[in-house]
Amino acid sequence: MSHYVGVDIGGTNIVCGLLDNELNLIDKVKKPTGAANGVDYVLGSIASMIDELLERQRLVRTDLGAVGMGNPGFVDPIRGVSLNSANLKWVDVPVSEKLGALLGLPVFIDNDVRMYTYGEAVRGAGRGYDHVMGVTLGTGIAAAMVNKGELYYGSGFLAGELGHVPLDGESALCGCGMRGCLETIASATGIARIARERLERGEASILGEWFPDGRRDGLTAADVSRAYDAGDKLAKDVLRFVGASLAKGLAWAISLWSPDIVIVGGGAANAGERLLAPTREALAPLLLPMYRERVVITTAKMNDDAGVIGSAAFAKARAANG
Amino acid sequence: MSHYVGVDIGGTNIVCGLLDNELNLIDKVKKPTGAANGVDYVLGSIASMIDELLERQRLVRTDLGAVGMGNPGFVDPIRGVSLNSANLKWVDVPVSEKLGALLGLPVFIDNDVRMYTYGEAVRGAGRGYDHVMGVTLGTGIAAAMVNKGELYYGSGFLAGELGHVPLDGESALCGCGMRGCLETIASATGIARIARERLERGEASILGEWFPDGRRDGLTAADVSRAYDAGDKLAKDVLRFVGASLAKGLAWAISLWSPDIVIVGGGAANAGERLLAPTREALAPLLLPMYRERVVITTAKMNDDAGVIGSAAFAKARAANG
Repeated sequence: MSHYVGVDIGGTNIVCGLLDNELNLIDKVKKPTGAANGVDYVLGSIASMIDELLERQRLVRTDLGAVGMGNPGFVDPIRGVSLNSANLKWVDVPVSEKLGALLGLPVFIDNDVRMYTYGEAVRGAGRGYDHVMGVTLGTGIAAAMVNKGELYYGSGFLAGELGHVPLDGESALCGCGMRGCLETIASATGIARIARERLERGEASILGEWFPDGRRDGLTAADVSRAYDAGDKLAKDVLRFVGASLAKGLAWAISLWSPDIVIVGGGAANAGERLLAPTREALAPLLLPMYRERVVITTAKMNDDAGVIGSAAFAKARAANG
Repeated sequence: MSHYVGVDIGGTNIVCGLLDNELNLIDKVKKPTGAANGVDYVLGSIASMIDELLERQRLVRTDLGAVGMGNPGFVDPIRGVSLNSANLKWVDVPVSEKLGALLGLPVFIDNDVRMYTYGEAVRGAGRGYDHVMGVTLGTGIAAAMVNKGELYYGSGFLAGELGHVPLDGESALCGCGMRGCLETIASATGIARIARERLERGEASILGEWFPDGRRDGLTAADVSRAYDAGDKLAKDVLRFVGASLAKGLAWAISLWSPDIVIVGGGAANAGERLLAPTREALAPLLLPMYRERVVITTAKMNDDAGVIGSAAFAKARAANG
């Protein structure tokens, strides 16, 4: 019972990490998810990845205290059920029960954004803060809140959908069916879309040279950061606009949740200060001084590993509470 | 230890209520606050009001398990300190300690919006719901959240400032110093201000007859409801606009907090369905279906007594937890 496993499962890949009792990540393996092969295939694959880690570290299953897992989509963490995952095409899958039976170990699951936030709270940028808010900017945007080591859930475990409130004056169609949601702007997808649309309107940018007509679909948020570093005005404008939009959502989240720190992670967080500096600038006039003077806005400390470490830490805490 | 006292203190009046062990309100007294006379005067006045209640009910102080109190402004409920109350002109007043010493009883305090929400959660419109959000529309607007009987606090006990995020396109100066805050619109003050401004612009309304030039300052939110009932178009437009603005704030609060029910109280909640119907209508397209189908928006059940009952219930719960 001296080690823990954290699993971060996405639509593309599964990462399994092995952690010691102090929650240091000592080894990890990565494999394609293969969700099309069905739930049992995926869970079997996770079990064999865990066995591979154990073998490499000369451990056995009984050395593990528990397994934690961060799932994309909606999760009931109490019953351990994946309620609905668009990425995995899972509906009402009793993951904790099924994977637990395969491994003979307690398995605890939660939503991936919560596990990332939990990881950053206990082992990352949130260490030393009692009230930690996490935001992930990837294909979409979502948020979670950890207060003194406890995740905030709300009714139906549905709290934290920062991405799906429409902003005034915005109209891009969102994946959820609404228009102008924060997610259509403040996400990796949103950054790329806005840059492409400005190129289409004929605005000058080095991105137009890198991605001429017909090849624009390949443009990503990372390219916008590259252009920014090359001094490109359009790239700077895009990140300033995205930061200002993100600030609108954060102003509500900070006023309602009152975090000490907001940790921005996910793919688009690689933009770092290029995005966070204009976000802070736009945020300041939207916050009461008591929040403005208190809250820290920063990037994740262990971006890729936060989900794995958070899942393992969550499993350890849940196992300890019986 | 069979009874509890709840105290609701505002800038104008103090209400003290006596509750039995099942938290039924059995008697109450009301007096002017007299905050200008200082903290000791006010706390002494509360102690004498409590003694008056006890005498009337033929009880003695040792029959009381605890005293709870809802204070306007910022409160540290753990230490029992009123951190800053603009209405009472209190800064860092150790209320629990001082009033506790006067009475020889445990005293627990919290912010008045939290006590109102707690009261509605445990004894009012929120009974039977696990995740209860309260909103008060009075001079200002504020919110609180109770999850399975536990208040949500955040860093510095500052969570729930729904009123001080600026809305796009709004510019009225707010009491906080910012412009266009939700509070400048969705509050009793906001309703009256918007109606007055429309009259100034020469819009036709029965309110213009009731409040001719020079007497417009007397116009209140209650008058807007009266005009609405008389079929007045301006009054209807004002409440529709206020409802739509309130909906913008509620969309963020519901997406971040995920309540089962939102209970709207405070003076302006007397507008009832005149305000809530347009609020619901504007809210629906701003929410993901999973929230829209789940959340109930309603008015407070025990408006004037919620603070007193909530304070007593809070004190009972805190006393039971040691």
